[in-house]
Amino acid sequence: MSRTPAYLSGAADRVMIQDLLARYAWELDHGSPEGWADAFTVHGIFEAPNLGFRVEGRESLIAFARDVHRTLPNVHHVMTGFVIDLSGDRAAGRCFLNEFMARPEGMYNNLQGWYQDEFVFDGNRWRIEHRRAYVAEPESMGTGKVGEYFREFSLAVAKYRVK
Amino acid sequence: MSRTPAYLSGAADRVMIQDLLARYAWELDHGSPEGWADAFTVHGIFEAPNLGFRVEGRESLIAFARDVHRTLPNVHHVMTGFVIDLSGDRAAGRCFLNEFMARPEGMYNNLQGWYQDEFVFDGNRWRIEHRRAYVAEPESMGTGKVGEYFREFSLAVAKYRVK
Amino acid sequence: MSRTPAYLSGAADRVMIQDLLARYAWELDHGSPEGWADAFTVHGIFEAPNLGFRVEGRESLIAFARDVHRTLPNVHHVMTGFVIDLSGDRAAGRCFLNEFMARPEGMYNNLQGWYQDEFVFDGNRWRIEHRRAYVAEPESMGTGKVGEYFREFSLAVAKYRVK
Repeated sequence: MSRTPAYLSGAADRVMIQDLLARYAWELDHGSPEGWADAFTVHGIFEAPNLGFRVEGRESLIAFARDVHRTLPNVHHVMTGFVIDLSGDRAAGRCFLNEFMARPEGMYNNLQGWYQDEFVFDGNRWRIEHRRAYVAEPESMGTGKVGEYFREFSLAVAKYRVK
Repeated sequence: MSRTPAYLSGAADRVMIQDLLARYAWELDHGSPEGWADAFTVHGIFEAPNLGFRVEGRESLIAFARDVHRTLPNVHHVMTGFVIDLSGDRAAGRCFLNEFMARPEGMYNNLQGWYQDEFVFDGNRWRIEHRRAYVAEPESMGTGKVGEYFREFSLAVAKYRVK
Repeated sequence: MSRTPAYLSGAADRVMIQDLLARYAWELDHGSPEGWADAFTVHGIFEAPNLGFRVEGRESLIAFARDVHRTLPNVHHVMTGFVIDLSGDRAAGRCFLNEFMARPEGMYNNLQGWYQDEFVFDGNRWRIEHRRAYVAEPESMGTGKVGEYFREFSLAVAKYRVK
């Protein structure tokens, strides 16, 4: 039943990276743009390779979160299945993403995908250095009511399009 | 790579509070009313401020869980995004709530919201002292098939209505 | 605020069992059949008592995962509510399962259920010795679009049917 110090430390790092990602989700869905940017390093990158956009650095991250808040209220970024590979003060992670959206007429599963992440520990806490979001079946986001609700978001993120 | 005792202890407290909330969900969805009440302190409070009801103390919590079991079978309380702020033997937490409901004709996303919690450690384990449940877009719960399935629950919880 | 070694060790074991289950989900949904089988002991068992099938041993587990990959692309096994009872180098666990499926025309809640598990620690890492999957309202899997998408899977798993 006794576990090694490395085992205890590795488990604690996984917990604290999940704590970081929980704060990320809260700030994006119910919090502040600045709070969301705090989840990243100052030069942190958020990109969605198969949607073709990329946001880099604190000021751009704040502007992006402001666009999300304005165009997509009452969305939940539900992350599960946290696989985290540790290497000292760095870590590589991935997790599932399932998004749900509450609207007066009902609830939607609006997006399914996954994240691939690079994290760094600064001696005190973890931050995201680079987060890649991948969307499964991206065309489904453009159909029906979900497509209607996402129209303004798609227009807003056009400015982050990778040329 | 070495982490401080406070870091290890803080991570462990977050795990054990999530363990408490997992037991809460299991007892509410598949377990016993008494088991659900065990997640709370003896004077624990469960309330839903924007639905207007409040349940306080072990006997009332047991009666409430009995109403949930009778009126809402096969619901899953899916909690994610656990943000926990620790302060010794007390903690404040919040997490997302997404509910799903299995019925013979299909699955429903029946509710989306979040919890705000106050926890206390009694030297041995954590308990909920006060849980507040908030519902996003509460009118969606009254529409369509979800509205039909929730009718009996709404009638049952009328007795917990805050005057 | 100081926690005992047993408390820290128990929390770490819960984290590492959840890490195992995250890898299980990733390998089943986006990974390799061999990677999925690695989540189990070499004689590990995966069974679905109320669907009537049972898969036992590494070779059969690999073949089963290959069937899942072929017939059910873009499914997410979303596990939450991890209740884990530890006993030295063994553990009993249960968690919720909610499955979601991305298709070009939209997203589906295709299955709701729960797992009951037996885990074993080999001195280095945890593995699943026996996982039981239970489905709530199994008839809902045969209806509508979900029923269409699951037809090939149902045919494929007929060979694992318990006589």
